[in-house]
Amino acid sequence: MHIHIICTGDEVLTGKIVNTNFSYIAQKLEDVGLSVHWGTTVGDDRESLLAAFRFAGERADAVIVNGGLGPTVDDLSQEIAAQAAGVELVMHEGWLARMEEFFLKRARTMPPNNRKQAMLPVGAEMLDNPIGTACGFAMDIGRARFFFTPGVPRELRRMLEEQIIPRLLERSGEPTSIFLKRFHSYGLGESHVDQLLAGVEQMDPDGSIKLGFRAHYPQIETKLTVRGGDTDDLRRKLAPVQAEVRKRLGNFILAEDDQTLEGVVLASLLQQQGTLAVVETFTSGQIAVRMASLPGAERVFRRGIEVRDFTELHGMLGLDGVHLTGPMTEASTEAVARAARERSGATHSLVVLIDLDDGPDRIDFGGTIWIGIATAETVALRRSRVLGGREWVRLGATELALDCLRRFLHRLPVVERIDFEKT
Amino acid sequence: MHIHIICTGDEVLTGKIVNTNFSYIAQKLEDVGLSVHWGTTVGDDRESLLAAFRFAGERADAVIVNGGLGPTVDDLSQEIAAQAAGVELVMHEGWLARMEEFFLKRARTMPPNNRKQAMLPVGAEMLDNPIGTACGFAMDIGRARFFFTPGVPRELRRMLEEQIIPRLLERSGEPTSIFLKRFHSYGLGESHVDQLLAGVEQMDPDGSIKLGFRAHYPQIETKLTVRGGDTDDLRRKLAPVQAEVRKRLGNFILAEDDQTLEGVVLASLLQQQGTLAVVETFTSGQIAVRMASLPGAERVFRRGIEVRDFTELHGMLGLDGVHLTGPMTEASTEAVARAARERSGATHSLVVLIDLDDGPDRIDFGGTIWIGIATAETVALRRSRVLGGREWVRLGATELALDCLRRFLHRLPVVERIDFEKT
Repeated sequence: MHIHIICTGDEVLTGKIVNTNFSYIAQKLEDVGLSVHWGTTVGDDRESLLAAFRFAGERADAVIVNGGLGPTVDDLSQEIAAQAAGVELVMHEGWLARMEEFFLKRARTMPPNNRKQAMLPVGAEMLDNPIGTACGFAMDIGRARFFFTPGVPRELRRMLEEQIIPRLLERSGEPTSIFLKRFHSYGLGESHVDQLLAGVEQMDPDGSIKLGFRAHYPQIETKLTVRGGDTDDLRRKLAPVQAEVRKRLGNFILAEDDQTLEGVVLASLLQQQGTLAVVETFTSGQIAVRMASLPGAERVFRRGIEVRDFTELHGMLGLDGVHLTGPMTEASTEAVARAARERSGATHSLVVLIDLDDGPDRIDFGGTIWIGIATAETVALRRSRVLGGREWVRLGATELALDCLRRFLHRLPVVERIDFEKT
Repeated sequence: MHIHIICTGDEVLTGKIVNTNFSYIAQKLEDVGLSVHWGTTVGDDRESLLAAFRFAGERADAVIVNGGLGPTVDDLSQEIAAQAAGVELVMHEGWLARMEEFFLKRARTMPPNNRKQAMLPVGAEMLDNPIGTACGFAMDIGRARFFFTPGVPRELRRMLEEQIIPRLLERSGEPTSIFLKRFHSYGLGESHVDQLLAGVEQMDPDGSIKLGFRAHYPQIETKLTVRGGDTDDLRRKLAPVQAEVRKRLGNFILAEDDQTLEGVVLASLLQQQGTLAVVETFTSGQIAVRMASLPGAERVFRRGIEVRDFTELHGMLGLDGVHLTGPMTEASTEAVARAARERSGATHSLVVLIDLDDGPDRIDFGGTIWIGIATAETVALRRSRVLGGREWVRLGATELALDCLRRFLHRLPVVERIDFEKT
């Protein structure tokens, strides 16, 4: 099935906003085994919209149009859709009533220009928008089925998932039950993950499982898309394959589905009734931002400290006899980790001390990362050398530190070689 | 002049990567007074590329194509460009020599498949790429002039600015000297800025100054695009208008051109030989991340502390008698600011204490932000109430705190009502 996406709006066309709706739609379709064949971006301009609708109507089987459903004069999608199909606009009384109710609930009167949002091309099928005043609609233009969606991202997302993808799958003739299983890992490069998972797709004899990846350094997302008849069928097909993926990627899987690394760490600490103190140097607070801003962190996150000069830690942590001027060592990292925990009274400390290379930023600029985790009973240490420029070192150190803490909390080996380190 | 942009590549079409190159190109063209009329996205697919080139060649005056110039088999731009124009590919000996030199400098031998990058359509004009192996090229297809650019963002940016924009301006017949002046502000909404600047465009009688905005909460960028004959002409036209913008936006301008708020704060501290200690609560380290990760921050950023429970500050800052359990007050904010400075020995402290509302996140969830700045001589305080959800409060508090410090360092009033606050 040939699918086109048409994104409309001056803000997108002029680059004032980055078009994340396009990539969102394209990824969502990929996740269910559909693919986008062509993308068009046009402004709030009658002539361009008409040309774009006609172009897609001649070539595509299905078209998703995003934007232009608002109440203002530059929102033109309904008008031009009607023109392209050679039909009139007509008031959709059902949607008008829904909008009036929407405003009533918020104790406001509906402004007259919102009525425009309920004017749909004759014959169009209304697509529900439970969280906004812009309803979507579906209709034929040329040989294609068009689906019109609102530009507001959360409204688009819900309509795409609940209304449009089921209709596209039905049209495509593919099995309509789909499940997407995701694994997040850190430490293995994309080609390494690909190689480790060679053959897992073939474990399902029907060929109804598709493997995909999405790399966003430092993490990689591994995706299994399963198609089947019903939920039981999906579960049955997925079970052995997801078990195999877990086995092959092993300790490197840091989270699954909607979980995040910091969320997993927080959940483990909450479960163990633990609390956390963090000490950062070159990462400059990035670990604190990721941990302390989570809902629930107020029960776990005790203290965060950042310094750019290690010797500041003498006074803050009472480390009088500890050597903090030269390159770090196991002993100094351990001393900082122990002191950070004791001073704060937290059950766990996580410290990240980075010896940066000298000189200006460059592609092979590097740093030596010292990570220490202390509890009342034990200390775990990890040293890693990373090259790739200042920001690369900073991002890598943040991820490595959080991942070491996850491993520690889950009783997995804290030291396990990763693809991004040099020693 | 009708300009089209064609973005190529499976990674963009499938949404694996968000298409920031498109918005970058479109904004750069807007900045010089040109505008994009149509955008197309296609994958690494011969048929689609040919159709896209032909479509644009029939309708546009100029086309910028991004991507597909690499050494691998799925990089097809040269091949399909030649096909669309009905010409052959020929080795560009000059570029081949440049590539060989490029590899030689890096002590590597050029892999044979890189030769492909020097194969250009007959009659194409080579566009220099001083930082990569993919040269660009310009040629006619249909009635349009096509400019082919590499997908690597930094290579695209340089080629666009140095090679393509001058050629487009020459073709457009517009004055080719262009200057873009930018002001960054915080605290005034976009419509408020628009209203404050009413009429500034008209100060230039030739109409060669264009005013524009770009809002990315919490900051707003105000842009003046000036066209003229030469640099002196531009400077003469801009001078009175930029002075007027500075006067009207006044203290709210926090930075100009490539400056950032945190960069301006760091520069002021460096100039005053100052050092900084930061205390954060709900902002969770966001101020530290912005300040401490700047090059040069190692000389200024003394200490950052984050807590989620204010009472943690008792032990860390020696605040035994200070009330830190209930809602914050001027007195408690001042005590924390003074102690943070004294304990660290920094010349300045910046503390941000946030009393969050109770309950789950929602659109009118709010917080009361207490900001304190202390030096050895004085203390400045600022209280602000912000509504708009947890992330909105967090972002607003971070920006407000950094902006208060900027105002303090520049001897401007620290307390000045902003559009985003409720009291």
